[in-house]
Amino acid sequence: MDTDPPLQLRVFNLNCWAIRYLSKLRQERIGLIGDTLSQEGFDLALLQEVWSERDYCELKQKLTACYPYSHYFKSGVIGSGLCVFSRYPILDTFLYQYSLNGYPYMLQHGDWFCGKAVGLLVIKICGIIFHVYVTHLHAEYCRDKDAYLPHRVVQAWELAQFIQHTSKGADVVLLGGDLNMHPGDVGIRLLRGWTGLRDSFPDTERFEGCEDGCTLVPANCFINKEELQPFPLGIRIDYILYKGLSHFAVRCDSLVTTTGTAPGKSIPYSDHEAIMATLCVKPREAAKGSSSSAIEPELVDVVNEARTEVRVGLHTAERQRYSNGRMAILALLLLFLQAAMGLSSLMGWDSPQPFPKFSFSLLSLLATVVLLLSMVLYVFHTIEVKMLQGTEEQMRLVLQDKLSSM
Amino acid sequence: MDTDPPLQLRVFNLNCWAIRYLSKLRQERIGLIGDTLSQEGFDLALLQEVWSERDYCELKQKLTACYPYSHYFKSGVIGSGLCVFSRYPILDTFLYQYSLNGYPYMLQHGDWFCGKAVGLLVIKICGIIFHVYVTHLHAEYCRDKDAYLPHRVVQAWELAQFIQHTSKGADVVLLGGDLNMHPGDVGIRLLRGWTGLRDSFPDTERFEGCEDGCTLVPANCFINKEELQPFPLGIRIDYILYKGLSHFAVRCDSLVTTTGTAPGKSIPYSDHEAIMATLCVKPREAAKGSSSSAIEPELVDVVNEARTEVRVGLHTAERQRYSNGRMAILALLLLFLQAAMGLSSLMGWDSPQPFPKFSFSLLSLLATVVLLLSMVLYVFHTIEVKMLQGTEEQMRLVLQDKLSSM
Repeated sequence: MDTDPPLQLRVFNLNCWAIRYLSKLRQERIGLIGDTLSQEGFDLALLQEVWSERDYCELKQKLTACYPYSHYFKSGVIGSGLCVFSRYPILDTFLYQYSLNGYPYMLQHGDWFCGKAVGLLVIKICGIIFHVYVTHLHAEYCRDKDAYLPHRVVQAWELAQFIQHTSKGADVVLLGGDLNMHPGDVGIRLLRGWTGLRDSFPDTERFEGCEDGCTLVPANCFINKEELQPFPLGIRIDYILYKGLSHFAVRCDSLVTTTGTAPGKSIPYSDHEAIMATLCVKPREAAKGSSSSAIEPELVDVVNEARTEVRVGLHTAERQRYSNGRMAILALLLLFLQAAMGLSSLMGWDSPQPFPKFSFSLLSLLATVVLLLSMVLYVFHTIEVKMLQGTEEQMRLVLQDKLSSM
Repeated sequence: MDTDPPLQLRVFNLNCWAIRYLSKLRQERIGLIGDTLSQEGFDLALLQEVWSERDYCELKQKLTACYPYSHYFKSGVIGSGLCVFSRYPILDTFLYQYSLNGYPYMLQHGDWFCGKAVGLLVIKICGIIFHVYVTHLHAEYCRDKDAYLPHRVVQAWELAQFIQHTSKGADVVLLGGDLNMHPGDVGIRLLRGWTGLRDSFPDTERFEGCEDGCTLVPANCFINKEELQPFPLGIRIDYILYKGLSHFAVRCDSLVTTTGTAPGKSIPYSDHEAIMATLCVKPREAAKGSSSSAIEPELVDVVNEARTEVRVGLHTAERQRYSNGRMAILALLLLFLQAAMGLSSLMGWDSPQPFPKFSFSLLSLLATVVLLLSMVLYVFHTIEVKMLQGTEEQMRLVLQDKLSSM
């Protein structure tokens, strides 16, 4: 391998907040992102929330000279929003959709419709095989009472498993994305503990940007200041994580975030700050054995904590399934009753007009709608229960294995 | 590695057809399968269509002495039906759900509710790492006019990709399952061409069982003879496929199928025949380079053929989405019209009772139901369109790469 001088890799990561008709100044910002990527000439740009394929095509057209290789991951109703621009050939791609991703009836949140997923790209740079993962996990809408925490924990677990199972052939693993988790949250500890990925912010030798590496900051004009009130400095939910496998070591030489506006401009790229990391990849002197056994006890605690969250989610899902089933049965009973009354009225067994016909019909309309919706939701929550049970069981087995081998 | 004498591995594969309340003689057959597995002492038993977890638990209880390790993959509304019993420790498991799997409204077929998937198990036997995959693809209900062919082709493509991406750390890859494809079908040619997996039936040194290795045969008493009329010998849709990676070679020493009944019994194990393979795994003398380049032109043709099927599916999905969208708009217009009429009647702008109230209400009931269903189906078919587009594009890119490197 011709990699004796260390390889310098410049990576750009940004949640672009590009929702058509909803995101403010979308077109200007997409133009600005395109200009910056084209001027700065990164090696890799990992983007999230590029919901419209037209925006992706616009970027692609602008960046084709500087980043001849790109990929957009399609999933869900409106697309995964994930895309990657690369200076180096993309050899292969693969998409894994998370099995749980919110609820279709939470229209105001909309995560379900995005088909949240993790995309894998295999890229060869100077003979080194990079497995690049780009992802976006379910958003957190209320930190104190986070109804989506179990789903996000399942997503973090599936992400960790996906990375572990698909990175065996890699020299370097790189993950960029909006994980919607604070650095100390159980999901990110699970992800990092399970995969051994390192976080560029605490690991970097030189940092420049928002305090504490925050990527959602009050200085950003698109941010709702009230939501960030408990965190005066902002929060860090976008990450660039990495690890070198077997023969390669990776170091983060420098990390830069934008600080509320795009450099030299009056508007930001997005409601999130961009992260730019310069990674240094060099051959490891001696192939290092896995040091995972050293962190085993800590990992056991994290898996246990994650399992508790999944169980909380399981109880909620079971309750929701039960109440939807009950509602469907009640609606069905009402319809039967109405059918019987209607029939008896038609056959003349009853006094004529026992019930005002109009309200009678309105009631049957309501019962039918409730029956249909409850049935669909019963099926939906049954799938949710199955997936949560599966994850909980998998975590239990992992804990058994870890504890028996300790 | 202490594998100098070749390793003999006995693998059992069966689609158990164990649907509660629907499958004939289910409990007797599950008992029979448990007895056989316990007496024969295979190394691995890969089962499909064990839909009820109670049946799995019954098998697990019976087999715990002979097969101390087992796993049931949960997914969909009623579970994936996939489970594995192993004499050797299962080190890790992972589930990948296919992105397309029929339609929820095709209740009579029911595939959508099963959450069809591929399960991966990592098993270490005498120091050799086996990646064992168990799967069940969408059924074929009408060969001449197979509405599910595009979905099955997408599943075969995702299966091939999943195996390729997750098997880098394996010494031996083993796939067992009901693929619902005849040996010459495009999906199986795609799967085999892409992964390099070998088919145990043409490759075995000794075969015993149904002619042509069929696994759905007229001699089976649970089989609808009329459906098999075009195939007097039966069809082969259940497979054990394998390949050795880098340092190991795999050979199929013998292959046996049941022939309509369980050996020495009057009833079969299932409506499918069981396949039992004896595989011989030994270290390869010299690490063989990939010979995939030799079959490239053939693979290009297969990917092209698969892409055509996906495009056919895409057109159908787009048509269905369009007609559901149109239906939703019509229902919405009708509801607006009715609301306007109702309002004008209430305000006294119109003659009293312009329309019989009962039919009026029934019509609005119908319009509401149609609106709701069309909206849900519009969303469903949009997801289908997105996934088919994504696969079609991926195949196009693969073809570009292959052709440019030829």
